[in-house]
Amino acid sequence: MQPIGVFDSGIGGLTVAHAIVERLPSESLIYYGDTAHLPYGDKSPAAIRQYSVGIVHFLLEKGCKLIVVACNTASSAAFDTLNDYFRGRVQLITVVDPLVRAVAAQNYRKVGVIATKATIQSGIYEQQLRALDPGLEVVSLATPLLVPMIEEGFIHNRISNDVIESYLGRPEFADIEALLLACTHYPLIRPEIEAFFGGKVAVYDSKEVTARAVHEALSRHGLLATGARSEAHRFYVSDHTPSFEDTTKLFYGAEVHLEHLNIWA
Amino acid sequence: MQPIGVFDSGIGGLTVAHAIVERLPSESLIYYGDTAHLPYGDKSPAAIRQYSVGIVHFLLEKGCKLIVVACNTASSAAFDTLNDYFRGRVQLITVVDPLVRAVAAQNYRKVGVIATKATIQSGIYEQQLRALDPGLEVVSLATPLLVPMIEEGFIHNRISNDVIESYLGRPEFADIEALLLACTHYPLIRPEIEAFFGGKVAVYDSKEVTARAVHEALSRHGLLATGARSEAHRFYVSDHTPSFEDTTKLFYGAEVHLEHLNIWA
Repeated sequence: MQPIGVFDSGIGGLTVAHAIVERLPSESLIYYGDTAHLPYGDKSPAAIRQYSVGIVHFLLEKGCKLIVVACNTASSAAFDTLNDYFRGRVQLITVVDPLVRAVAAQNYRKVGVIATKATIQSGIYEQQLRALDPGLEVVSLATPLLVPMIEEGFIHNRISNDVIESYLGRPEFADIEALLLACTHYPLIRPEIEAFFGGKVAVYDSKEVTARAVHEALSRHGLLATGARSEAHRFYVSDHTPSFEDTTKLFYGAEVHLEHLNIWA
Repeated sequence: MQPIGVFDSGIGGLTVAHAIVERLPSESLIYYGDTAHLPYGDKSPAAIRQYSVGIVHFLLEKGCKLIVVACNTASSAAFDTLNDYFRGRVQLITVVDPLVRAVAAQNYRKVGVIATKATIQSGIYEQQLRALDPGLEVVSLATPLLVPMIEEGFIHNRISNDVIESYLGRPEFADIEALLLACTHYPLIRPEIEAFFGGKVAVYDSKEVTARAVHEALSRHGLLATGARSEAHRFYVSDHTPSFEDTTKLFYGAEVHLEHLNIWA
């Protein structure tokens, strides 16, 4: 009955946390949102590694049986470091691997990837997609305005449509067959992105594929919780403002209570 | 020949640093951009105070004769704390006071203030404006999408016009006579904001008024540097990425070399 640890640079990882809770209702979650350092997408890989190692230490102290890196930026910048530090002590699952495997299995010819600056600069999606499917053409684009746009509620309106068009209307995206939404915020504008491409591009995000990967990993190691729906989730943030609490509704579907716990203080 | 210290949560404070250098070319600047914690606008007052105290300590160690809090969010959340900590040790100038004094002197009936969430929630502009001009009506609005929009280069196009309209087109702004741009990023879209109001609203930002306040304070204390144009400015950041260096052009008019120095590491 140990909890599953989930962490993100902020609140966006709640989209992944929610998918895990929906798929595995008997499991208890411990979520850590590093709101003191958010957003990771603009930070250096060295800084992101340092923050991520601190958070995994904390989640291990809380007794987590499996830890989900529910942030594409942390997954891309820090996963190798985390694996070096914590190998053999806990199973780590990123939001990158499940998404890459789902897309690589489809035998596309050309796909697009959109994400934060740090994720795109890491090149992780191109490398991992090509490792599984060497003939695949991958076009990547940093789309840094999407996160603040979504957090500020500019969704389903003229501004969000204009921003999406300015990013995805570029010629290199004209003939993609699939688009990977490689940031936990982007599922909130998935319908608009699908509409922009007129339904002709398959759009993928990490939520459900990551929840499925968690399910499989726990099952494989005999660690699945059983019994009634858990209500024992805990949600921690390294910095607390009322605005963060408001934003949880957007990403979790319901407002959750955030506990302020700065593990670096 | 001691330097002037200038700090901000990131790169935006370079608009103020540039105005100081233009007005006082013999002075040397030490700039600290807290890019490891940026943006301050979403953080809690407690976190912003802690970061600001650390930075002022650093600038004092560097021998600064005067320190400019070139960030509206830090000015509003941390100025009282900074004054308590450093009273008698160094003169502190914020970007709030000079702007408030310039506007309050004009005897307006109704003015608007736009800024980050943290600045607006502090209420500092309303309080200080009303302290100087009790009859003044002040309408305030947090406009958090403007900073990322400007940093990502969405300026002078349909998106920036739509975002400006969605914020400033609200009925409470319909009859303002002046608008305070209470964030160091906003001067970059000042022409668009002026155009939005058809030239009928006086638009104020902190740059020149703060540079003038620095000039007056140094002059009053006999601390003005004399001699040739200084080339000895130093620009430090707590986290370093190529993207921060690119962005300096936007705010300083020329690219500056950023030195990575994390004072918390």
